[in-house]
Amino acid sequence: MNVNGTPYRTIWEAAGGAVEIIDQTKLPHQFVTIKLRSLDDAATAIADMWVRGAPLIGAMAAYGMYLAMGEDGSDAGLAHAAKTLTATRPTAVNLAWAVDHMTALLTPLAPADRPQAARREAARICDEDVAICNGIGEHGLAKIEQAWDAKGETGPVNILTHCNAGWLATVDWGTALAPIYKAHEAGIPVHVWVDETRPRNQGASLTAWELGQHGVPNTLIVDNAGGHLMQHGMVDLCITGTDRTTATGDVANKIGTYLKALAAHDNQVPFYVALPGPTIDWQARDGIADIPIEQRDGREVTQITGRQAGAGGTNDLVTIDLAPEGTAAANYAFDVTPARLVTGLITERGVCPATAAGLAGLYPEKAG
Amino acid sequence: MNVNGTPYRTIWEAAGGAVEIIDQTKLPHQFVTIKLRSLDDAATAIADMWVRGAPLIGAMAAYGMYLAMGEDGSDAGLAHAAKTLTATRPTAVNLAWAVDHMTALLTPLAPADRPQAARREAARICDEDVAICNGIGEHGLAKIEQAWDAKGETGPVNILTHCNAGWLATVDWGTALAPIYKAHEAGIPVHVWVDETRPRNQGASLTAWELGQHGVPNTLIVDNAGGHLMQHGMVDLCITGTDRTTATGDVANKIGTYLKALAAHDNQVPFYVALPGPTIDWQARDGIADIPIEQRDGREVTQITGRQAGAGGTNDLVTIDLAPEGTAAANYAFDVTPARLVTGLITERGVCPATAAGLAGLYPEKAG
Repeated sequence: MNVNGTPYRTIWEAAGGAVEIIDQTKLPHQFVTIKLRSLDDAATAIADMWVRGAPLIGAMAAYGMYLAMGEDGSDAGLAHAAKTLTATRPTAVNLAWAVDHMTALLTPLAPADRPQAARREAARICDEDVAICNGIGEHGLAKIEQAWDAKGETGPVNILTHCNAGWLATVDWGTALAPIYKAHEAGIPVHVWVDETRPRNQGASLTAWELGQHGVPNTLIVDNAGGHLMQHGMVDLCITGTDRTTATGDVANKIGTYLKALAAHDNQVPFYVALPGPTIDWQARDGIADIPIEQRDGREVTQITGRQAGAGGTNDLVTIDLAPEGTAAANYAFDVTPARLVTGLITERGVCPATAAGLAGLYPEKAG
Repeated sequence: MNVNGTPYRTIWEAAGGAVEIIDQTKLPHQFVTIKLRSLDDAATAIADMWVRGAPLIGAMAAYGMYLAMGEDGSDAGLAHAAKTLTATRPTAVNLAWAVDHMTALLTPLAPADRPQAARREAARICDEDVAICNGIGEHGLAKIEQAWDAKGETGPVNILTHCNAGWLATVDWGTALAPIYKAHEAGIPVHVWVDETRPRNQGASLTAWELGQHGVPNTLIVDNAGGHLMQHGMVDLCITGTDRTTATGDVANKIGTYLKALAAHDNQVPFYVALPGPTIDWQARDGIADIPIEQRDGREVTQITGRQAGAGGTNDLVTIDLAPEGTAAANYAFDVTPARLVTGLITERGVCPATAAGLAGLYPEKAG
């Protein structure tokens, strides 16, 4: 999508065999791109979260294999690259998938053929991700069009989202934000309520930034505000992403998603969850019982980083403490929204009810 | 309650006719008390929010009238004091009540008698607030005892609270936190989940601090986390305060309270709201329709203040920007929790259902 009026993906091939990315750790305060030229560069990009978001991490890992093959296309080089990349973020499913996939593809080839084969496959993985997100966007667009019709085509369609499931988390378009970009491009007036998404503030720092850069009207709110907005008819629908979806339609997403789903249900506001089919966990059937919830460092709660106006007009990034010294903090990264609170699941194959039957209807080859 | 092991109120008489307070704008990073010696000092203390919380503002205003009478006990002095104090925070109901009450009491008296009469009445108002909060504490304690019994007296009673309705908002004890302090002193093991309470972070800065100073175990969480905790049986009951309660039991409290009440209801966790009887609005019958919600400056959302470790071990307070430059932000200060989600109202007269009949039973002289 657009940055300063220019269309971008989150990862692309640069001149001289380099791979270029946006350093997302600097957003929203600075827009900086970085050229990666080696396996080590790629590993650092993942480990230090210059790139984040499951689909983008997978794409980065695939291109990391390409960069590695340019340095050492031997069997030993291939094994080293796979090991190095896999170790960067051990729990990232897309990362492991991409590394395994590339290894299987490259192993039978002659070392001299591996760099170009890796480059082609990484590009294909990126294009496939864009196609999936594009599909989510098209199918979700229909739901925004319905809301627009229901309002008699007056006023903007007000959409609440939580966390960042935008193009920055994927290669382009995003998941939850893809339908919003599609609606914006179709000329439907949309306005997005952006939950700041404590503790890591992905809403305030990434979602507000990417919507603003692309010209989509949006307003930042604290995570506490959505219920009040829904009580007063100020939200027409909600769309969030999900990290993991059970075969029965429960969704594990950023902590706080469940609270918004409760408020939507209490106020008859449609609550949609957008997801690529590959993120469905066909083994899990009870989200609350089956999905382990990551606990992260409490300092993400007690500290925060932002931009301080400095001398000479500099925008220095500084980290401050918010709580009394020695305060204990708990930091659960995700929560599970039961399927009963989800109006529909928006996938690249269409929109279905958040039920086992609904998902099986879209993915008959996967449902057991 | 205790600070560094010493019992404090939030306002007290100091030597030499001064009135002393805690500068709450410095909390939790610094504990500083200030001696107020004049009407202007008192007005600044309210206007600049060195003191905050409706009951404490009322007490401060009463003592402000006392300080004013020491400077000029004439009719003109009385009128000037009333006008000056009322103008500090025009929408504070307790402030206007205290100023009107003191004016009515002092007007018939000879100027020479006014200072001591004002001092006595201000002290009485403080003691009355302490008695009300003590009563809330005693009645709420019974609910914590019930939860303790229900757990078979194993493990701590886990209580979730939102915002700061502790002793810092009153003269002592607090409202929502009074039952918790009573339970702690009664030897019931309690553990408090403290919502940080964006955007002004009263939970992270005030509730965590006052509980910690008094020795009550507590853990800071982001506002997004409570639903997850309740889904997993980690909350035994919720207790919050309220700024305004309708005659039918709807409660207007800090933004986000409604979301926690929804989660409590969805997980069969008791949700109590603690309030002094005088804060009931007997005219209001539909909280969502009748109670106007204050909108505050969006910069409270886009900026935040905290403590930065500086050179030489200083703890400098700095304000940083969290969102992209130019981000629009909406900042609704309160939301309304419908009575149907409230398990009971804890007042100085007892605990009642959040219904018109429940409140009328406790306050027959007020219910029409």
